[in-house]
Amino acid sequence: MMEPLRIGLAGLGTVGGGVVRLLADNADLIARRAGRAIVVTAVSARDRNRDRGIDLSATAWMDDATELAARDDVDVVVELIGGSDGPALTLARRTLAAGKAFVTANKAMLAHHGLELAGVAEARGLALRYEAAVAGGIPVIKGLSEGMTANRIGRVYGLLNGTCNYILTRMENERLDFDVVLAEAQAAGYAETDPSFDIDGIDTAHKLSILAALAFGARIDFGAVATEGIRAVELADIDHAATLGFRIKLVGLAETAAGHLFQRVHPALVPLDHPLAAAGGALNAVVAEGDFVGRLLFQGRGAGDGPTASAVVADLVDIARGNNSHVFGMPVADLAALPPADTASRHGRYYLRLTVADRPGVLAELTAALRDHGVSIESLIQRGHAANGDALVVMVTHGAGEARVLAALAQMAASDAVTGAPVMMHILDL
Amino acid sequence: MMEPLRIGLAGLGTVGGGVVRLLADNADLIARRAGRAIVVTAVSARDRNRDRGIDLSATAWMDDATELAARDDVDVVVELIGGSDGPALTLARRTLAAGKAFVTANKAMLAHHGLELAGVAEARGLALRYEAAVAGGIPVIKGLSEGMTANRIGRVYGLLNGTCNYILTRMENERLDFDVVLAEAQAAGYAETDPSFDIDGIDTAHKLSILAALAFGARIDFGAVATEGIRAVELADIDHAATLGFRIKLVGLAETAAGHLFQRVHPALVPLDHPLAAAGGALNAVVAEGDFVGRLLFQGRGAGDGPTASAVVADLVDIARGNNSHVFGMPVADLAALPPADTASRHGRYYLRLTVADRPGVLAELTAALRDHGVSIESLIQRGHAANGDALVVMVTHGAGEARVLAALAQMAASDAVTGAPVMMHILDL
Repeated sequence: MMEPLRIGLAGLGTVGGGVVRLLADNADLIARRAGRAIVVTAVSARDRNRDRGIDLSATAWMDDATELAARDDVDVVVELIGGSDGPALTLARRTLAAGKAFVTANKAMLAHHGLELAGVAEARGLALRYEAAVAGGIPVIKGLSEGMTANRIGRVYGLLNGTCNYILTRMENERLDFDVVLAEAQAAGYAETDPSFDIDGIDTAHKLSILAALAFGARIDFGAVATEGIRAVELADIDHAATLGFRIKLVGLAETAAGHLFQRVHPALVPLDHPLAAAGGALNAVVAEGDFVGRLLFQGRGAGDGPTASAVVADLVDIARGNNSHVFGMPVADLAALPPADTASRHGRYYLRLTVADRPGVLAELTAALRDHGVSIESLIQRGHAANGDALVVMVTHGAGEARVLAALAQMAASDAVTGAPVMMHILDL
Repeated sequence: MMEPLRIGLAGLGTVGGGVVRLLADNADLIARRAGRAIVVTAVSARDRNRDRGIDLSATAWMDDATELAARDDVDVVVELIGGSDGPALTLARRTLAAGKAFVTANKAMLAHHGLELAGVAEARGLALRYEAAVAGGIPVIKGLSEGMTANRIGRVYGLLNGTCNYILTRMENERLDFDVVLAEAQAAGYAETDPSFDIDGIDTAHKLSILAALAFGARIDFGAVATEGIRAVELADIDHAATLGFRIKLVGLAETAAGHLFQRVHPALVPLDHPLAAAGGALNAVVAEGDFVGRLLFQGRGAGDGPTASAVVADLVDIARGNNSHVFGMPVADLAALPPADTASRHGRYYLRLTVADRPGVLAELTAALRDHGVSIESLIQRGHAANGDALVVMVTHGAGEARVLAALAQMAASDAVTGAPVMMHILDL
């Protein structure tokens, strides 16, 4: 058997601890599968004295994570610090500059600096791997870059944030309001103290931009992801969606068409018979559509120490086996710089929710706004609103151009009969 | 860019034609992703003159497929002939003996001769790959052997035969009897003229034995797969299952426990909220459970030219990239020879269907048989039977040892009140 593969591990939080435990618990199995042992020789974390329940007695400790790259007894650096810049980025650059392989779970860093790092890795023939950065334990990076490699991929979408999925699922199952579930999730450690990255869709956008690059052979363009989170989703929306045969999910969706790249993160109404509708709780799920393979679905746990460690170590085993591929599926120079698609030109069905004064003529006004813009209505529900006597009007449009729907919505919002900000959600007819 | 990877292709049926088309249609994309072109230099099939709608003008033709292995202009042989022995096996042996990589979609051959071939490939450092052999276009071989490689996998199961899934789905949706749907499927080309391999579960058993080897690091033991097909499934079973909250699927299930290997193919009642229940039509789906990653689901099209070609070419791209792994995830010598588990010692819920004479005391007799063996009843439905005045009794047991349920069933079957062969199906409580 070959010499062990020696790991320098930066970050000993939930995931870092999981990696240490996994490599210890399954050491024999991994060595047989990888053809060599995989051992952690050096670690770095913020607090040396914290009890993490893992044995680090045989492992060197570095106060400065970025110095892991320089150690002679480290072949591969695993970065689990997080953050798009700062020490994580410094460590990535130093590791590649030192001619070593780099494994990361850091979607924010890849979304912002992935092309730069991939270019360096490629120029030096080094592995740069990130299975854990998207959809946690689900091997979707491998699925896209190796499993579907024969295919022109036209679309990739899914549920990429377990926190949002957990919140929406609990709202539905327990009939709770968003704020209540969020507070509970924070107390239980399922959501961050500052939940913005998750619930405002930014984390999903990071992951989506990486999937899009890989799927389409395109340059990462995180800045072009139209991003909307789940703060505006009310229990009433979930109920009305259910009545109409849908479940609300935070969906990240990317497509290419006519040389343009469409990327959007948004709460969407998913038909109940679509596989994404069945992925509840903290599950993640990714759908990718290839021209030969058709629609593939990958589903599993998107976060947590075990699943994320599983993905990190899968990358390490690939490196131990000597397997390597281009970071984004093809040479960086071949990745196309695709201009963003014009979202207003899209066509689909839309869910609209308006809070209106409960007086005669309001419904006529709303429906006239849609008529004026050539949008026809598939379903309409009007209900008295418990809170303040206002009425709630929910509509699902027939297929219509998005620009027309937005214009109709603007016309409605300008009416003094409309008392709250109108909400529009997309219907996932895929 | 490196020299092209040159393919000798044996078999030009649906899948072989698909491979040729895929390599032509996506040639540029594949070359960028693989780092070199992949070209078919020689082919072999039964009928040279058949119009397959593909351009073979620049391709050498071999009347004897087994001679592809010897050609100087062939680096990799792709075998799409089928059959566990005969020319496919001869070609496999000759290819590896000639020091060339071998790619196959042939589950029957792997189930019977996979260990022999893997041993030869390993000894010579050659790639032997078979993504297309299991679950068609779904990258589940890669998912298990590379994506989940950090995990101890305890269970793998799924829907591995599109024909059975198609038949069961049509029976339910169109309210048709098994024989009618089978005849239609044969006429439409979805089922073979001799459908036994599919509907008697043999094809599923082939695939399951391969998945089990890969998942558990065990020697393939196809002979130990307890195999039962879907011929006994009646529309009435599907209806009663639906009433009770289940959908009937042909499930292949493998587990390891206490050093034993459990492998079974059987029609099972899948709870409607389990992801396998939602995989309808000709879809395949595989669930694998790892100790760190938890439950992963892979779903997609399990057959057809496009999906299968996608899997074959993914293997070719891996070979072109120089990526290689052990055939069954670890060295053949490390694969454990696991003795078969005793199925009678299993515990679960069971669905029982009996046709009985419609006279007093019959139900008491049936329920007494269960009581005598300590099996308690969770649900019971009795209905008049349209056909001949007999009654149909359907029961779901509480969790019970399988040996007890079988003994109770034997006692019932011996009663002169029971007019047809009793049917027992497993409930998938996973």
